[in-house]
Amino acid sequence: MKTITGGVCAPKGFMAGGIRCGIKQGLQKNDLALIYSKEFCSAAAVFTENKVKAASVLVSQENIANGKLRAVIANSGNANACTGKHGMDAARRMAHLIADELSIAPSEAVVASTGVIGVPLPIEAIEKNISALKASLRSDEAGHTAALEAIMTTDTRKKDIAVEVEIDGKIVRIGAMAKGSGMIHPNMATMLCFITTDAAITPSALDCALRYAVNHSFNRLTVDGDTSTNDMAVIMANGEAENNPVIGYQGSGIKNRGYEIFCRALEHVCVELTRMMARDGEGATKLITVTVSGAQSEEKAVLLAKSAASSSLVKTACFGADANWGRVLCAMGYSGADFDPSKVSVGFRSSAGEIQVCSEGQTVNFSEERAKEILSREEIEILIGLSEGNYKVSVWSCDLSYDYIKINGDYRS
Amino acid sequence: MKTITGGVCAPKGFMAGGIRCGIKQGLQKNDLALIYSKEFCSAAAVFTENKVKAASVLVSQENIANGKLRAVIANSGNANACTGKHGMDAARRMAHLIADELSIAPSEAVVASTGVIGVPLPIEAIEKNISALKASLRSDEAGHTAALEAIMTTDTRKKDIAVEVEIDGKIVRIGAMAKGSGMIHPNMATMLCFITTDAAITPSALDCALRYAVNHSFNRLTVDGDTSTNDMAVIMANGEAENNPVIGYQGSGIKNRGYEIFCRALEHVCVELTRMMARDGEGATKLITVTVSGAQSEEKAVLLAKSAASSSLVKTACFGADANWGRVLCAMGYSGADFDPSKVSVGFRSSAGEIQVCSEGQTVNFSEERAKEILSREEIEILIGLSEGNYKVSVWSCDLSYDYIKINGDYRS
Repeated sequence: MKTITGGVCAPKGFMAGGIRCGIKQGLQKNDLALIYSKEFCSAAAVFTENKVKAASVLVSQENIANGKLRAVIANSGNANACTGKHGMDAARRMAHLIADELSIAPSEAVVASTGVIGVPLPIEAIEKNISALKASLRSDEAGHTAALEAIMTTDTRKKDIAVEVEIDGKIVRIGAMAKGSGMIHPNMATMLCFITTDAAITPSALDCALRYAVNHSFNRLTVDGDTSTNDMAVIMANGEAENNPVIGYQGSGIKNRGYEIFCRALEHVCVELTRMMARDGEGATKLITVTVSGAQSEEKAVLLAKSAASSSLVKTACFGADANWGRVLCAMGYSGADFDPSKVSVGFRSSAGEIQVCSEGQTVNFSEERAKEILSREEIEILIGLSEGNYKVSVWSCDLSYDYIKINGDYRS
Repeated sequence: MKTITGGVCAPKGFMAGGIRCGIKQGLQKNDLALIYSKEFCSAAAVFTENKVKAASVLVSQENIANGKLRAVIANSGNANACTGKHGMDAARRMAHLIADELSIAPSEAVVASTGVIGVPLPIEAIEKNISALKASLRSDEAGHTAALEAIMTTDTRKKDIAVEVEIDGKIVRIGAMAKGSGMIHPNMATMLCFITTDAAITPSALDCALRYAVNHSFNRLTVDGDTSTNDMAVIMANGEAENNPVIGYQGSGIKNRGYEIFCRALEHVCVELTRMMARDGEGATKLITVTVSGAQSEEKAVLLAKSAASSSLVKTACFGADANWGRVLCAMGYSGADFDPSKVSVGFRSSAGEIQVCSEGQTVNFSEERAKEILSREEIEILIGLSEGNYKVSVWSCDLSYDYIKINGDYRS
């Protein structure tokens, strides 16, 4: 697997662009993005599980039902959620406008929105600028970047990646962009992720590979415990790499070698985006990886790791570089998972080294200064051992800092 | 029902005291508390549901098994949790030390601890000062206050209340103290609550009344989502009011009029303490009450209200006095409760007035300035209407401020 440049434009046959249409008020930033494939694509998507779904989610669920897509249109600055019939009409209109402009069917377009909830989407701003949006399409990295900038809200860093792998002697590329910083929590929250690939792959294999990758990445990310109304991860595959079609179902014997390669590459793409999102959690100063090992099952390991990773007290302790492992055990204790506290070990790791702070559920003699040194780095790992089995799982989070309050205390103004 | 002074010493026959024994380092504050009844008491208690339980919780569960108590000994500055066999020995020793001093059985003493997790409890400090602790006992409000001060950690306000009611022509008193600010979450977290009453009441009625009161108060409180290893609420009843014994089981027809009066009074005591704890949440600037009405069931109403009350985004919006009702709907959406978003109404209320901001799941025209004025008060209420049924429930929370990070980023130093 090789990391390459180009983002969503790295795979053959994809174009992207972004412009400013004026939805984001008072900011001279892009707020309308487009990703487009000249050829027909197989597509798969995963959407928010929030009971309150944005209009864009409802319309996109309809449009992707047949597994075919050619375009993604996305705006930032307005979530178009809790906006009733007007919101549904506006989301459908977005799909129609871009479909007309690109001469595709409206059902071939996914619609995504992110921003403030409950404010009517100013669809006229999109209508007025729809030709300019099409005109912004480019097949190089500049197109990718313009689109990526147009989906960012409180994000402080760009989140994108592209990789290439070889399948049956053919180069297959996967490119991706994501936005999301606050409100990211299992499962899938205020996160938009658009993935392109030139792999030839059956629709069911694409769907299985996406769900597998999302479960092992975005669904193991927690920033502030809130899950949003607008999340989606979408993948489009146009087959232009001309590999033998990738075939497979997760967990079954029916898969070819291409599926394994593709799946691993897609998981890598999603995990890297997940780590970028955790690092860019609102106000975050640190990327926290919580790794639970020695678990009886994957489910239990995930439950325990997420509980520790979500705890406000663990997150503030990490912010303060305080080796307060008692908070880790306490968070495990209210996770709902059954485990033996007297067998638990806890350690901390970073580029500065590794230290064990708890063994068999009790403190061990350790140097507080050494622990503080390790926890002061920008990427830290909390290592939890259960001594019950062989399952090992990582989840990602970030610390909770003053700036989280600053960003969210007055987000709308 | 009349509010009276005296705290846990208000009911006849109870004494309390508190001293400094040196467990809290570097602070000239009380850290060892005692509550004592000269007569035998019926007793009931509710403990943390955290899988990781402090030694004090495990020992107290043993001691209260027979429903009899005469004393509570509590320390702050050390949680005696995750401390293994040494911790269990220390908790048992605390019970023995105070039992010897008071000439009661060790099983008649409840042991409580609060403070940092994972550090061995310096039991020698308690041993050395156990006579002084007994000597500090007083039957007036000063004794109550000395004990209350000794259980406070990051609390910035004292939490206590006493009431009197009339049962069968006799005056019956209930007095209570509580500590807790951070880590308070359903169910029952880093919260200590000690309640005394001179009511004559059967052990089973006392147990039912306590569980009912706790479910309608402390278990509807959320500060930071963490639940602790050390929580307990304990009530002792010595019968000195000489009322006809209170008899009753919650939810059954078998109860006398005294039960209803006692139950309502105990619920009031616990709700008032809950509101004090919410207002004193770590770094909190506001008390938030979330009231869900029009629900199909009490369970659903609680689930929805707690989800909104726990959301970091809702809490920071309240801190910023930002009428961001979309975050309220979003939090309801991921609560797991089934409801129709298109029927939801949201409003805000405080001493400055009331304003509706969402109707039928959509925004209504409202004045942002007026909403900000209402949300700027120290006590605010989020009103959620479901239009599905007749159940109405309130839960309590507080906002999330810069000071939460400050307090918890370096709690141990």
